[in-house]
Amino acid sequence: MKFQLTTNYLEKIIRLIAKKDGNVIRDLLHEVHFADIAELLEELKPEEAAYLIKSLESKITSEALMELDEDDREKILSYLSTKEIAKEIEEMDTDDAADVVAELDDHIQKKVIEIIEDEEHASDIVELLTYDKNTAGALMAKELVQVKETWTVAGCVREMRRQAENITRVHSIYVTDKDGKLKGRLSLKDLLTASVKTHIIDVYIPKVDFVTVTTEDEEVARIMQKYDLEAIPVVDENGILVGRITIDDIVDFIKEEAEKDYQMAAGISQDVEADDSILELTKARLPWLVLGLFGGLGSVYILQGFEEALFNYPILFFFTPLIAAMAGNVGVQSSAIIVQGLANDVVKGSLFYRLLKELGLALINGTILGLLVIFFGFIVDQDFIVSITIAISMLVVIIIAALIGTFVPIILDRKGIDPAIATGPFITTSNDIFGIFLFFYIAKLILGF
Amino acid sequence: MKFQLTTNYLEKIIRLIAKKDGNVIRDLLHEVHFADIAELLEELKPEEAAYLIKSLESKITSEALMELDEDDREKILSYLSTKEIAKEIEEMDTDDAADVVAELDDHIQKKVIEIIEDEEHASDIVELLTYDKNTAGALMAKELVQVKETWTVAGCVREMRRQAENITRVHSIYVTDKDGKLKGRLSLKDLLTASVKTHIIDVYIPKVDFVTVTTEDEEVARIMQKYDLEAIPVVDENGILVGRITIDDIVDFIKEEAEKDYQMAAGISQDVEADDSILELTKARLPWLVLGLFGGLGSVYILQGFEEALFNYPILFFFTPLIAAMAGNVGVQSSAIIVQGLANDVVKGSLFYRLLKELGLALINGTILGLLVIFFGFIVDQDFIVSITIAISMLVVIIIAALIGTFVPIILDRKGIDPAIATGPFITTSNDIFGIFLFFYIAKLILGF
Repeated sequence: MKFQLTTNYLEKIIRLIAKKDGNVIRDLLHEVHFADIAELLEELKPEEAAYLIKSLESKITSEALMELDEDDREKILSYLSTKEIAKEIEEMDTDDAADVVAELDDHIQKKVIEIIEDEEHASDIVELLTYDKNTAGALMAKELVQVKETWTVAGCVREMRRQAENITRVHSIYVTDKDGKLKGRLSLKDLLTASVKTHIIDVYIPKVDFVTVTTEDEEVARIMQKYDLEAIPVVDENGILVGRITIDDIVDFIKEEAEKDYQMAAGISQDVEADDSILELTKARLPWLVLGLFGGLGSVYILQGFEEALFNYPILFFFTPLIAAMAGNVGVQSSAIIVQGLANDVVKGSLFYRLLKELGLALINGTILGLLVIFFGFIVDQDFIVSITIAISMLVVIIIAALIGTFVPIILDRKGIDPAIATGPFITTSNDIFGIFLFFYIAKLILGF
Repeated sequence: MKFQLTTNYLEKIIRLIAKKDGNVIRDLLHEVHFADIAELLEELKPEEAAYLIKSLESKITSEALMELDEDDREKILSYLSTKEIAKEIEEMDTDDAADVVAELDDHIQKKVIEIIEDEEHASDIVELLTYDKNTAGALMAKELVQVKETWTVAGCVREMRRQAENITRVHSIYVTDKDGKLKGRLSLKDLLTASVKTHIIDVYIPKVDFVTVTTEDEEVARIMQKYDLEAIPVVDENGILVGRITIDDIVDFIKEEAEKDYQMAAGISQDVEADDSILELTKARLPWLVLGLFGGLGSVYILQGFEEALFNYPILFFFTPLIAAMAGNVGVQSSAIIVQGLANDVVKGSLFYRLLKELGLALINGTILGLLVIFFGFIVDQDFIVSITIAISMLVVIIIAALIGTFVPIILDRKGIDPAIATGPFITTSNDIFGIFLFFYIAKLILGF
């Protein structure tokens, strides 16, 4: 059942493409799933991939194209004529089609839409292109099964047969009034069990979750996840049913969001992949490194301010990286857990309660780590007062780092800013500076240098 | 359409629970969605939540219970009798029911299963409990619509009506031979368009993706995502259809995996939430902090080795936190992008190619950052040779950190270890030590102290 893309197989395909043996390729890949074709396309040069697409049926290749990265797809499409692009788009669902058309250059966009034979498909795509990014309108597809409340079950089945032609999967059957206003949905079970003469109005379920075209994509994902929906209808400002969003789009959305948060925590500011160009990767990574550098220069400045400790307590300077690392680690832990909690709506209770909890945690962790430092000092025969100083100031640094790590994301979230930005280099860098300053300040108070 | 859980509303419910006004509660919450009931349960004390569950219909509360955290659910169930628990479990799909039963203590488990009235349901649960964790068997549900290839469309619809009674959503209709071996699936479209006398064997789709009960959950998620499946049938070692897994379980799985990776990157070693107890949070966080502490003590030891620089070049000690921070940041960036790439299968090409790319990136970033350091030295009137020394050694540190950050995850992955473990504190700590050592070593070579 499983397709394995071996080097041998790949080389065979490449040879066939070089020989322009389209018929042999078609026979060879006849039974292969589009997702596997997509894997194959990824391994080919864009011009080879374009030839493969021309050789195979658009029904398969249009799906395979949608599995590719935007960048890869763009490169491949640049080797296809507008007519060939239009053929692919004709086979796509409207939501995918609109995404691909949006990626094309303006003048190609126009030409492609003009060439599309199915006029309804073309006008659906044009409509979808009008919605703002990150809204339900931009996410939805026009393909759906819609029946009128006045119909009978028999008429409904008849109409469904017709509509189902264009739809790969029937998620839900939506019921509208004669003007197209969403009234409810029909369960497959009811349709199967009702007598053919029953009117839809007597069997449909009037309770139906929906979103409007302007609902934000994040909110759509939240609703669909919370209420375990596999599809949700989309209505316009007048309540007219205009499209539907399915769970597979939301799966992609959830994955992308999780990756964005993860990259943010790692100090990568744009959506990049391991296979992007060096320039793109530099753009995504350098800004955070520069931020880190400035933070580091800040700590140089602070350390210079405590220069006098060099003579009596040089050991403090040996401990500086340790203190900075602890501050950074504690801060990132606290902020990561809050950022996730905020994303999942589990951060409950008052700010004060959260403060107490983080304080308790930091006290426990800080005390244990402080005792370890004192124990280490004992082993290497370090001045006891120095060990105590380091342990105490580390405890304070840990507490402050935990509080900063907790509050910065919460405050950002309350101000409507994505709290994920507070994780990673941002928290690490600011905690480095705070930590080092506090460490030396407290050491100065105790040791009096 | 939307339910808002206000403080007022919550207080009203709590008052009603205190007065044991079950009927009023039932009327009040009659139309409320189970996901909203779940939100409400989360806000209540376990004993209050238990009363609420007893007051409402099991049809709703069983679904609400599944929306809760395992910990919260356990606490609430401890206030219910085995009979009341069994009533909830009766309403659950078998996969959820098995999860809940597995969470119960052994002796309660047995009693609950004995009390369940529907014997098929009970034996399904017992069967599901036998599968290993993290396999398709443990993930699947027994509810599915199954038709025999020898039936006619009419017989099929009749049988589907019967089976659909127990199934909330019909994902796919699976076709088996008379022994129950999976043969293919039936599209709803074909069922709607075929004449009632047609035999299933003439219309079904023989190509169907499936997994076996022993397939790992990760692999199930990969297949379902790759092939855009909303449900996948599960067969036993003899090819007999035994269950199905739906996309909503996979959505949860993807979210959990993403959260695990994110927490790993942030140095949190167990699946915890902001609302877990201080003890649980300490257990998840302290180990990484101790690792960081040992790393820090390692750097103390290294710095002591370069003590002689204190007299001529104390400035080097002021720059140590900056070097450590840069090493850490670069390492985390590199490893995060590789970990994501590995998870998404986009890390292509040879190790050598990847080495060259990271080298190029590190060179670009390191040079720009080095120039900034020299510029900073110029402004604060720092010894030029010292600035050059810092810039050069920082460049080397950045290159080494990038290479470590890239190779450690790749090597872990090749050895079959989760590469995500290499991100976060692990990379930061080892890069701290390497970075500080290299920095002083190179400085010593150039400045000759």
